[in-house]
Amino acid sequence: MSTAFLNPLLIDDAVRRALEEDLGRAGDITTLATIPASAQAELVIASRQAGVVAGLPLAEAAFRLYDPTVRFTPKTREGGDLEPGTVVATVSGNARSILSSERTALNFMGRLCGIATLTRRYADLVAGTSARIVCTRKTTPGLRAFEKYAVKCGGGHNHRYGLDDAVLIKDNHIAVAGGIGPALRAAKAAVGHLVKIEIEVDRLDQLDEVLAEGADVVLLDNMPPDTLRRAVVMVAGRMLTEASGGINLDTVRAAAETGVDMISVGALTHSAPVLDLGLDIAIR
Amino acid sequence: MSTAFLNPLLIDDAVRRALEEDLGRAGDITTLATIPASAQAELVIASRQAGVVAGLPLAEAAFRLYDPTVRFTPKTREGGDLEPGTVVATVSGNARSILSSERTALNFMGRLCGIATLTRRYADLVAGTSARIVCTRKTTPGLRAFEKYAVKCGGGHNHRYGLDDAVLIKDNHIAVAGGIGPALRAAKAAVGHLVKIEIEVDRLDQLDEVLAEGADVVLLDNMPPDTLRRAVVMVAGRMLTEASGGINLDTVRAAAETGVDMISVGALTHSAPVLDLGLDIAIR
Amino acid sequence: MSTAFLNPLLIDDAVRRALEEDLGRAGDITTLATIPASAQAELVIASRQAGVVAGLPLAEAAFRLYDPTVRFTPKTREGGDLEPGTVVATVSGNARSILSSERTALNFMGRLCGIATLTRRYADLVAGTSARIVCTRKTTPGLRAFEKYAVKCGGGHNHRYGLDDAVLIKDNHIAVAGGIGPALRAAKAAVGHLVKIEIEVDRLDQLDEVLAEGADVVLLDNMPPDTLRRAVVMVAGRMLTEASGGINLDTVRAAAETGVDMISVGALTHSAPVLDLGLDIAIR
Amino acid sequence: MSTAFLNPLLIDDAVRRALEEDLGRAGDITTLATIPASAQAELVIASRQAGVVAGLPLAEAAFRLYDPTVRFTPKTREGGDLEPGTVVATVSGNARSILSSERTALNFMGRLCGIATLTRRYADLVAGTSARIVCTRKTTPGLRAFEKYAVKCGGGHNHRYGLDDAVLIKDNHIAVAGGIGPALRAAKAAVGHLVKIEIEVDRLDQLDEVLAEGADVVLLDNMPPDTLRRAVVMVAGRMLTEASGGINLDTVRAAAETGVDMISVGALTHSAPVLDLGLDIAIR
Amino acid sequence: MSTAFLNPLLIDDAVRRALEEDLGRAGDITTLATIPASAQAELVIASRQAGVVAGLPLAEAAFRLYDPTVRFTPKTREGGDLEPGTVVATVSGNARSILSSERTALNFMGRLCGIATLTRRYADLVAGTSARIVCTRKTTPGLRAFEKYAVKCGGGHNHRYGLDDAVLIKDNHIAVAGGIGPALRAAKAAVGHLVKIEIEVDRLDQLDEVLAEGADVVLLDNMPPDTLRRAVVMVAGRMLTEASGGINLDTVRAAAETGVDMISVGALTHSAPVLDLGLDIAIR
Amino acid sequence: MSTAFLNPLLIDDAVRRALEEDLGRAGDITTLATIPASAQAELVIASRQAGVVAGLPLAEAAFRLYDPTVRFTPKTREGGDLEPGTVVATVSGNARSILSSERTALNFMGRLCGIATLTRRYADLVAGTSARIVCTRKTTPGLRAFEKYAVKCGGGHNHRYGLDDAVLIKDNHIAVAGGIGPALRAAKAAVGHLVKIEIEVDRLDQLDEVLAEGADVVLLDNMPPDTLRRAVVMVAGRMLTEASGGINLDTVRAAAETGVDMISVGALTHSAPVLDLGLDIAIR
Repeated sequence: MSTAFLNPLLIDDAVRRALEEDLGRAGDITTLATIPASAQAELVIASRQAGVVAGLPLAEAAFRLYDPTVRFTPKTREGGDLEPGTVVATVSGNARSILSSERTALNFMGRLCGIATLTRRYADLVAGTSARIVCTRKTTPGLRAFEKYAVKCGGGHNHRYGLDDAVLIKDNHIAVAGGIGPALRAAKAAVGHLVKIEIEVDRLDQLDEVLAEGADVVLLDNMPPDTLRRAVVMVAGRMLTEASGGINLDTVRAAAETGVDMISVGALTHSAPVLDLGLDIAIR
Repeated sequence: MSTAFLNPLLIDDAVRRALEEDLGRAGDITTLATIPASAQAELVIASRQAGVVAGLPLAEAAFRLYDPTVRFTPKTREGGDLEPGTVVATVSGNARSILSSERTALNFMGRLCGIATLTRRYADLVAGTSARIVCTRKTTPGLRAFEKYAVKCGGGHNHRYGLDDAVLIKDNHIAVAGGIGPALRAAKAAVGHLVKIEIEVDRLDQLDEVLAEGADVVLLDNMPPDTLRRAVVMVAGRMLTEASGGINLDTVRAAAETGVDMISVGALTHSAPVLDLGLDIAIR
Repeated sequence: MSTAFLNPLLIDDAVRRALEEDLGRAGDITTLATIPASAQAELVIASRQAGVVAGLPLAEAAFRLYDPTVRFTPKTREGGDLEPGTVVATVSGNARSILSSERTALNFMGRLCGIATLTRRYADLVAGTSARIVCTRKTTPGLRAFEKYAVKCGGGHNHRYGLDDAVLIKDNHIAVAGGIGPALRAAKAAVGHLVKIEIEVDRLDQLDEVLAEGADVVLLDNMPPDTLRRAVVMVAGRMLTEASGGINLDTVRAAAETGVDMISVGALTHSAPVLDLGLDIAIR
Repeated sequence: MSTAFLNPLLIDDAVRRALEEDLGRAGDITTLATIPASAQAELVIASRQAGVVAGLPLAEAAFRLYDPTVRFTPKTREGGDLEPGTVVATVSGNARSILSSERTALNFMGRLCGIATLTRRYADLVAGTSARIVCTRKTTPGLRAFEKYAVKCGGGHNHRYGLDDAVLIKDNHIAVAGGIGPALRAAKAAVGHLVKIEIEVDRLDQLDEVLAEGADVVLLDNMPPDTLRRAVVMVAGRMLTEASGGINLDTVRAAAETGVDMISVGALTHSAPVLDLGLDIAIR
Repeated sequence: MSTAFLNPLLIDDAVRRALEEDLGRAGDITTLATIPASAQAELVIASRQAGVVAGLPLAEAAFRLYDPTVRFTPKTREGGDLEPGTVVATVSGNARSILSSERTALNFMGRLCGIATLTRRYADLVAGTSARIVCTRKTTPGLRAFEKYAVKCGGGHNHRYGLDDAVLIKDNHIAVAGGIGPALRAAKAAVGHLVKIEIEVDRLDQLDEVLAEGADVVLLDNMPPDTLRRAVVMVAGRMLTEASGGINLDTVRAAAETGVDMISVGALTHSAPVLDLGLDIAIR
Repeated sequence: MSTAFLNPLLIDDAVRRALEEDLGRAGDITTLATIPASAQAELVIASRQAGVVAGLPLAEAAFRLYDPTVRFTPKTREGGDLEPGTVVATVSGNARSILSSERTALNFMGRLCGIATLTRRYADLVAGTSARIVCTRKTTPGLRAFEKYAVKCGGGHNHRYGLDDAVLIKDNHIAVAGGIGPALRAAKAAVGHLVKIEIEVDRLDQLDEVLAEGADVVLLDNMPPDTLRRAVVMVAGRMLTEASGGINLDTVRAAAETGVDMISVGALTHSAPVLDLGLDIAIR
């Protein structure tokens, strides 16, 4: 995906932490005991399932940070399609180094490919509609930027990255602020001119208030397709519309056909199963 | 579960990193704009599904690290049962603080409860057999200790924590070392007297060699139940037996009935869906 | 300022680093040698100039992180006015602790009050116009969030916090992308629905293109007041307008009277002199 | 300046922190969206003002840490003179990388050149006298070592680096210790043989006591030139003399002509405006 | 020693910390002042005593982390013998860099060679018996993995690396658990199948209980040789035996001749004197 | 010792690192399995040898950082005398917490008491002479500030803390600089007015040069007592004198009687054996 971009400053820190977590104090004692220091190996990473590639730079970092002399050669590209048997990458160099870092590389890639693959399924289901699939803040602690990147690799789009880069006014904020109008006005007064404002409604009468007050995006929460469709008509292009709440693979198409601009799916990041990646190691 | 234990030194670092990831530089700009600094809130965390509790100390830390004056009161215990509607914990104090940290708390708890819940399903399926359900190193980068703890909360048991605390000789190690005998002898010579040695076999003739040489545990990889049963008979209690490879909810009972001591399931940590936890916030 | 908000997770880390920088390995050897361990002190921090308060939470942290038993009592509020002699805060407790941490506290407060004070001067100069004073990314390395907060304490507003939370297309981006239209279309395709897009122009014919293509904000770079005024007329409220480039205390009023929505001033954060804060310590 | 030296271990950590602060989680989304991954660029950094160079190693690190393949070529040397238009350095390589890291490089260099430039103005004003210009501990939190280095690049000299590397007995220490004699004796007893001792006086009768007791340096605080001159005569070379307190560009020459050895100026580090560095980027 | 292995992920962090500790903020001011930036040097590290090599990778890292262009060439191997005058390594490159980092390199190597050398003395004393010399958790805070590695370089073996990788039930645990049987049963129930269990006894009647209950290793604490010998006979190979408590160079042989499998010696890591390494620097 | 002072900002970081090193990922699995969560304990730390106390704040931190509810009560003071049986401190609270952190506490205290005790032996041997015992930079990587503090607790004095806080010109610096005169002049020109300068000589003709040029301290390296005595006479109080090189418990008195001001002993920090501290734990 041409627009999926991973901030390079985040990679090494996360990968190093994962390597340290796996290697502990004493390191890979099995490999040390059984593999000569001079042995060379070639590792082939292949997919055992159909899916979408994401995470090559993290896999590369796992091998490089353990041993800079190991060579990692991608055979696919981020966002590319995988079939059972597709070779994802090859890794060659010191056998001890490769065996000691491959699990960390695979733990990252399996997870991110899993997210990209699930996102692709949702994206394919809404193909031909105006709806984009977007992620949420329900991400794995410590891995948010990587998971949002994987969503883009899978053809999805990103919601806010955190609490700081956009306003999303939810029911509790509305209740305390004294209603939709006061909440929106308070937000507009407080934030900078480059911050967008989204507000959540779960009834159409609330939507009227939002339209009267103005916002960048309205989140239509837990609405059935008919209500969503009426909401989209009411909005009439004056702001973006996002459907949210309990949408799954069975219901996403119906939601998309209502004409909403975005459909957010927490499961993309919180419940995607890993993609099964197989390893074949030849040691010389 | 009385024996599930979380190293307290690991909690704050991981939770602080997650909070920082969500709050970025500017913090929770929505809450700031719409919630008065003096407002008080009470949050109730309840389950929307049946499941198993894990992660209360991490949720507690999320609220405490953001604002030490917020009070977190567990209403369940780690390893306890959840039904739809069960209250997991209540949180009270400054409304801004609670709203700004609840997503981090829930991201941890939802994930760990999900792991504990899936583990419980496996553990229930093998009830009455001699088999324990054990996890693998296929964990989320950065969260291994927490995920292994959640497995214990769910009634599972832990495999090694990393590459350093036990030997697990796999096919590649055997191939390079020159066979099962040389690999086992090399491992015994290299490691300390408090390190156990496990070795993987995928054929019964290999098992003969392992039994001749001696090991603490034998990993029986990708064997159908009949072969597993024969392996267990061959071992005859001389070492522990672990079944591994592609075992799922449909096949775990048959594996357990072969008499193996352990069944390892990567999906416990790499593919458990989150447990759906609902929030109800009352702000005053 | 009611809307100035400081992400609490950032404070302790930055202040601890500053304390470590001042105390080195051996600590405050002068105080150790000359002040008894049991001596108590009271420190009064007062302004020696007129200005605006910013940074009380950082000063508080400096004393607390060195010695949690020291009591810091603000006598003003963030964004409040200072006259020569105004007491900003009092600090009481262990004399050694207070003497060893006061320079760190003051280094933070002097700098942030300086930024707030300069911002206030700009904000006062544009009073009665529609223009907001906004900061830039020309901040002190390591202190950006605090400096942007100080700008708000002084009555200014924040531009983007970094490269990641909004799009700002500059001349180089336009040149490579193949023009204003392609650049804006590329940006809209790439970023999420909660990311605003600003684009820089330095000629009015460019502005026509921007208006045709659509954006959230247009940055009018290095335009004299007459040109700015024509630009504002051309835009006619269809997007926000920001004036930028070499605007100083002498020229800001004329810029503001053109009707632009924002005026960005790099000097707020890169060249504000510190506010002179005096110390009076009574040791018992 | 041949004797300005920057501890190389400090550079990468500070620069990485600054890059992370600017790039956040998502990175430079503007550049990603509008600049092709394969584009190459050449950046020329030139001064728009007369001044003094400081900070080339930090600028180099900003580009290198973001992308090790970018080439940074200094065209000046630390401590060298700048005129309007002087080329400071060129940077060439991947266009995305250069655009994403140039602000961090410039934020460091502009600040340090500003300090060196202001220091040079003071140093030039005291040329021909015996006085050295020295800095203070009123530095930017987190940047002290770099700022003290910039002072040396500008022809100034360094006061202590922190509370731990020399003794400076101030009025409060004297008061609690029971006078100048007891304070000096306490300090001499407490510190190692490689630690110098300076003591602050603001009256000539105090100076008598200091001379009687002995010290390495005496700080003459807030004394007008006549008093300073009398102090220098009294000291008669038996210890070093430092003038301090409210000395600015208008008054520094008169202070220097009193014969003092050092004049300390807090403004060097706390209130130097940045030097304006211009960028010219050619992208291919 | 072929089986001594140092987890490479731990090295740079520890060495960088040590360099920072030595260089402080201002760096090596002596070398800066007196050695030209262009000077080249060659450093020869030689032993002044007989002993055993350990720590070459840490010395290498000290030079490399300060200046990647410095070349470190080992002339011995880890675990190799040293005589007075044996050249351990040569270092060549920039003279300033070598002079600024040699103390850190030597502080690591001297300490680790000291541990390896003392271990070798113990190991030689038990040669021909069945006993291995093992270390304890009485290590230098922050250096455990390196010290355990040095023990292996010297021909010793490792006890557990920490509290988490094996069970060691001591008298206090036994007392609270309600006796040896309950303690062993509790441990077996709690820990994973790859965790070994050792238990401490100081009387032979306790040993009976341990043998009845079963464990992997029994620690025979503070027993004289006669008692140790009786214990070994009682155990009769059913578990490993470890002698512990006050064993020194004078008594270790007698302990080893009792037939125990391991003898643990805290002094290996807590009281080994450094090995004296001499430096000869030629600067051009 | 009234003048021994430990920078409080350094303690928690070093102790937390040590706790993490001991507890690993899974924590204290023995204690978890055998000690009930509700058990309370009282730990008494007593000395088994005569010696000197150092390190109470680090022991306190070990217990507190693991569990803030544990109470640590010192029964001695830093620098105080220990006899066999002297109670150093008591610790009470949660039994699991105390058992899990006591080894870390003791590893710090044993080492620092060992250094203080050895320092006291040297200091006692030179009692009645003018000589101070001083330490060197041959410290344990990562623990320098604590070890220099322990030297002061034992009645010794501190040499420089690192390469940055004083100049020490050694033979290599002299050789490259072109002699003693050029080296001293270069150093005086380069460093700030609060930095002392020491220079090493190993022959009396070199001392003449040093006296002609002037320095703060002269290091008399590897001189026998007669030569030292002649050197002291030559210096005649014009600068401080330090004897260095191979001085041990047998030779230190003779060196001190030559009239030198300081005697530096690397063994204080690089080869002091730990002090044996006994534990007695009562668990309820």
